[in-house]
Amino acid sequence: MPKVSEDHLAARRREILDGARRCFAEYGYDGATVRRLEVATGLSRGAIFHHYRDKEALFLALAHEDAGRMADVAAQEGLVQVMRDMLDHPENFDWLGTRLEIARKLRTDSSFRAEWQARSAELESATLARLERQRGAGRLRDDLPTETIVRYLDLVLDGLITRLATGQSTDDLHGVLDLVEASVRRP
Amino acid sequence: MPKVSEDHLAARRREILDGARRCFAEYGYDGATVRRLEVATGLSRGAIFHHYRDKEALFLALAHEDAGRMADVAAQEGLVQVMRDMLDHPENFDWLGTRLEIARKLRTDSSFRAEWQARSAELESATLARLERQRGAGRLRDDLPTETIVRYLDLVLDGLITRLATGQSTDDLHGVLDLVEASVRRP
Repeated sequence: MPKVSEDHLAARRREILDGARRCFAEYGYDGATVRRLEVATGLSRGAIFHHYRDKEALFLALAHEDAGRMADVAAQEGLVQVMRDMLDHPENFDWLGTRLEIARKLRTDSSFRAEWQARSAELESATLARLERQRGAGRLRDDLPTETIVRYLDLVLDGLITRLATGQSTDDLHGVLDLVEASVRRP
Repeated sequence: MPKVSEDHLAARRREILDGARRCFAEYGYDGATVRRLEVATGLSRGAIFHHYRDKEALFLALAHEDAGRMADVAAQEGLVQVMRDMLDHPENFDWLGTRLEIARKLRTDSSFRAEWQARSAELESATLARLERQRGAGRLRDDLPTETIVRYLDLVLDGLITRLATGQSTDDLHGVLDLVEASVRRP
C-alpha cells in the first residue's frame, strides 16, 4: 500500500477515535448513538464503520489505546504513577465513566468480556514486569507473591476510576496513593 | 395509627424493596421499567409509587438499606470485614452492579448525588468511629490521619464493587484484603 494512503488511513482512524472518545464521554455507551458518533467525528456512518465493525469495536479500540498508554507509564514508573496522572489530569480520563456503564455487558456477555480482558492484559503485564524489576532491586516487599501485589494495585485503580467517574471528590487521594505505594515497598 | 396497619405498611414496603432489588439486579437501572417492577413486586404501579415517589427514590431506599447493613458490620468488625462478606457471598450483592450504571447520573445530577452521599454517610461514620476506637486501642497505624485511612478503605471497597459487578474473578482477593488490613495496622 502506498505511503500516502497509509497516512491517510491512520489520520482517518485518529479522527474517528478522537470523536468517539468525546462522544462516549458526553453521552455514555448507550447514549453514543450512530447519529451522535457521526456528529462527533464529522464522518458518515459508512466511513466510521468501514474502519470499526460496530460500536463495540470502537469502544474496545479506545480501551486498547488507553491500556497501551497506561502500560507505557506503568512499565517505566509503575501503576501508582498511572493513578497519580489520573488525579492530576482527570480531564484526560473523562470517558472512563463509560467503563462503569458497561459493567452489565462485561458480566453478561462473555465474548465481550474476553475481548476486554485481552485489551487490559498489556497493562497487567507491564505492571507485573516492573514489579519484578523492583523486586530484583530489593525495593518490593518480599513476603507476598508479585501477583497479589498486582491484584491489589488493580483493585485500587478500579476504585479510583469509579471515584473519578462518579464525580466524587478526589481531594486527599494523593495521600491515599502514598499509603498504597508504601504498603508494597520493602520496609 | 393502629398496630395492624403499621405492620401491613412495613410488610408492603418489604415486598416492594425485595422485588425492586431483584429487578435492578436482573435488568439494571434503566432496564428496570415500571412494568418489570410491577412483575417483580407482584404489585401495581399505583401501589409501588404510593410508597416510593419514583424509581430514583426506590433505588436510594435500597442503597440506604445496604449502607445500613454494611455500617453495622463496619461498626463491629471494620470495613475490611464488609469486603470479606462480599467476597464470600457475592449473591447478596448482585444488585450492586447497578451502582456502576448510575455513575453518569451521579456525576451529572447534583441533587441525586447529594441524596446518594447522604445515604452512604452512615457507613463512612461507622467506619470512622471504629477506626478511632482501634486507634485508641493502639491497633491502628498512627502516622496518618484517620480520614486518610477511611478514604483508602473506601477506595478499595469501590474497586471491589467494580470487580464483583463486572463479573471478574475474585480468586485471591482474600490475600489482597490481608494486605489491605495489614497496611492500616500498627506495625
